[in-house]
Amino acid sequence: MAGDHYDKLETRDPQEREREFFGRLPDLVALALSAPGWARHLAGVDPNAVTSRAALAELPVLRKADLVALQKATPPFGGFNVTAPGKMQRLLMSPGPIFEPEGKGKDVWGAARALFAAGMRPGDIVHNSFAYHLTPGGFMMDAGAQALGCAVIPAGTGNTEQQLEAIAHFRPSGYLGTPDFLKILLDTAVKAGKDTSSIERGLVSGAALPSSLRHELAARGVGVLQCYATADIGVIAYESEAKEGMIVNETRLVEIVRPGTGDPVAEGEVGEVVVTSFDPDYPMIRLATGDLSAVLKDRSPCGRSNMRIKGWMGRADQTAKVKGMFVHPSEVAEVGRRHPGLVRLRLTVARAGEQDVMTLLAECAAPEEGLQDAVAATLQSVTKLRGDVKLVAPGSLPNDGKVIADERPVG
Amino acid sequence: MAGDHYDKLETRDPQEREREFFGRLPDLVALALSAPGWARHLAGVDPNAVTSRAALAELPVLRKADLVALQKATPPFGGFNVTAPGKMQRLLMSPGPIFEPEGKGKDVWGAARALFAAGMRPGDIVHNSFAYHLTPGGFMMDAGAQALGCAVIPAGTGNTEQQLEAIAHFRPSGYLGTPDFLKILLDTAVKAGKDTSSIERGLVSGAALPSSLRHELAARGVGVLQCYATADIGVIAYESEAKEGMIVNETRLVEIVRPGTGDPVAEGEVGEVVVTSFDPDYPMIRLATGDLSAVLKDRSPCGRSNMRIKGWMGRADQTAKVKGMFVHPSEVAEVGRRHPGLVRLRLTVARAGEQDVMTLLAECAAPEEGLQDAVAATLQSVTKLRGDVKLVAPGSLPNDGKVIADERPVG
Repeated sequence: MAGDHYDKLETRDPQEREREFFGRLPDLVALALSAPGWARHLAGVDPNAVTSRAALAELPVLRKADLVALQKATPPFGGFNVTAPGKMQRLLMSPGPIFEPEGKGKDVWGAARALFAAGMRPGDIVHNSFAYHLTPGGFMMDAGAQALGCAVIPAGTGNTEQQLEAIAHFRPSGYLGTPDFLKILLDTAVKAGKDTSSIERGLVSGAALPSSLRHELAARGVGVLQCYATADIGVIAYESEAKEGMIVNETRLVEIVRPGTGDPVAEGEVGEVVVTSFDPDYPMIRLATGDLSAVLKDRSPCGRSNMRIKGWMGRADQTAKVKGMFVHPSEVAEVGRRHPGLVRLRLTVARAGEQDVMTLLAECAAPEEGLQDAVAATLQSVTKLRGDVKLVAPGSLPNDGKVIADERPVG
Repeated sequence: MAGDHYDKLETRDPQEREREFFGRLPDLVALALSAPGWARHLAGVDPNAVTSRAALAELPVLRKADLVALQKATPPFGGFNVTAPGKMQRLLMSPGPIFEPEGKGKDVWGAARALFAAGMRPGDIVHNSFAYHLTPGGFMMDAGAQALGCAVIPAGTGNTEQQLEAIAHFRPSGYLGTPDFLKILLDTAVKAGKDTSSIERGLVSGAALPSSLRHELAARGVGVLQCYATADIGVIAYESEAKEGMIVNETRLVEIVRPGTGDPVAEGEVGEVVVTSFDPDYPMIRLATGDLSAVLKDRSPCGRSNMRIKGWMGRADQTAKVKGMFVHPSEVAEVGRRHPGLVRLRLTVARAGEQDVMTLLAECAAPEEGLQDAVAATLQSVTKLRGDVKLVAPGSLPNDGKVIADERPVG
């Protein structure tokens, strides 16, 4: 299947992709600024200046975690929608609650490429076990399958017996849903004597796919690949048959930043996934997803030339309550900003003598005299909490995206 | 709102509509004959001859009740689909199980006119509480709303609390779903202190709408109108603000026939609803729905000029088990066919002396000598069961669509 791609965009020269994106970005920013939420959030930004990754990195991130309050204050979308709610295709809701629109374009969530990479082709029948009720998952995959030219069984969640009846009758070749529910379907089919042998491949998401589960599903005849998607942005990245990380979607611009900041990390370093999407109805400019990932070096052997990320590596939101006070990753970042000699920082929170204790580990190549005390003073000034400071050599902190490591025993 | 219609087709001269339908029907029949199921079912039919209601009435009906077995024998659609399953938009399943495709056209189930007649307009936000999982109801209304230009909250069934949260946040003006669930939503909202005041109108279906419930909903601020739809055909007819019966959809051809036959009844007489639809992917020619209704005389005061029916009046399938043997409406019809002097027939089944007893009531204007005995002999020959025969005056049988009236005590 190598050499088999959705279109030529996937294999183009990466520099050409960057040129296209940053050629379009000023228009996207200008369009966004027509919405009051973006006008507030990006006040003072000149759209025509946003023509490079460096310029994009100067813009503030929009934290997904802040959307709940912003949408509550200015329903339904915090003023971040360009198109009026009544002119959208559908209006959806995710746990949070966070509300998302589906615009009227074709495959606005960009799932078709992920389906193609997972082996789905025009004319295939696919069984979609993502929910269609209120949440975007079902429609995200449905729209991608329609764009690709597949027929969809909109199975949704639950009703396992009826889903098996539909599978036995329609004989789909593809499955879309969580990997866990695929296992439930296959297990229940064995017990109930229902035929699921038509299912040969799957695109799974929404839950972890341990290697053991991937192998079990493969042994039972279903090869599955994963994609990484969020309700507001849609499909951000997806696996190909190379199974080497996830390839970023052609219609998304991904940055990995230090949690709590908007500052891109070095290639390979774990950080928060920040996404810019070119949705004309609900544009997103630097949405900080709250998810951790890292960039993989080099290109995928499948021929797709876009940036690869490692997939979901945990949550970036590391706010901790220390001695009754909240400490945010952005405060740790602020300490770093005030001492330019520091590289990476990691605040550990532990228990000693029935007390919370904080220690700030700070990478520094050549510490000046008095730096340690100065950093401790800054830490107290920013967090209103006392903590120890330890200066360590650059590269000695683990690459796990953690800015605050809460090491207190649970319970 | 009178004078306000979806398009000019709704108010055209009825003869123009008939001319258009019967001008298109030969092509529809020819298209259907390209599918093996229709080629079997309509064997020997000349498409070019089907140019009038009388000619259409000569074609055999396809009983919805027979679809279960036909689809089982020839999955997935009994060979009645013109388009291959993999080229459809979605593949669905209703209780039975009966399987239905959704073609790739816009609003293939024809719901947009019903939504318009119920007061929905482009730019409106509508809350859709029909299920999207496996069954066609949710997508039927969703596609109609998209065609009309409304934004849809795909709420589905269940999750009442979350549906109320979505309603309070998005403030939809329209509700789509069963009338019962609308009452549940409104009642639960009162208890939970959630705001549903944005909902001003509803299009309801899928359950009876007693006048008392319609009035209660109106008193609570929601004016609801009904439509009559089936999973295979979509929206067959719908109410308008005139609230005088249901107006047949522009894209459907409706006949009312004597249950158990394909013979049209006189205008106003209760019979089985038989529908012909012009779906190019899954054409239906004389689908006998198993539902009872009757034609209402004259035109609707709302200006829509199409035939009106009374809405759902019960089930047409009146097969009864008598002395351990099945008696079908088609057998009663066969008795009538063998005695052309008879008008309407009604077989009553009762209990006397701990025995099942059958009595055939037969309308006859001028009974010949010996007719009663001859009819009794025919009844026994056709049903393999003995029964009394009573000749009665034309018009004396009740107009309730019943060909077999089972009057035995239940239990």
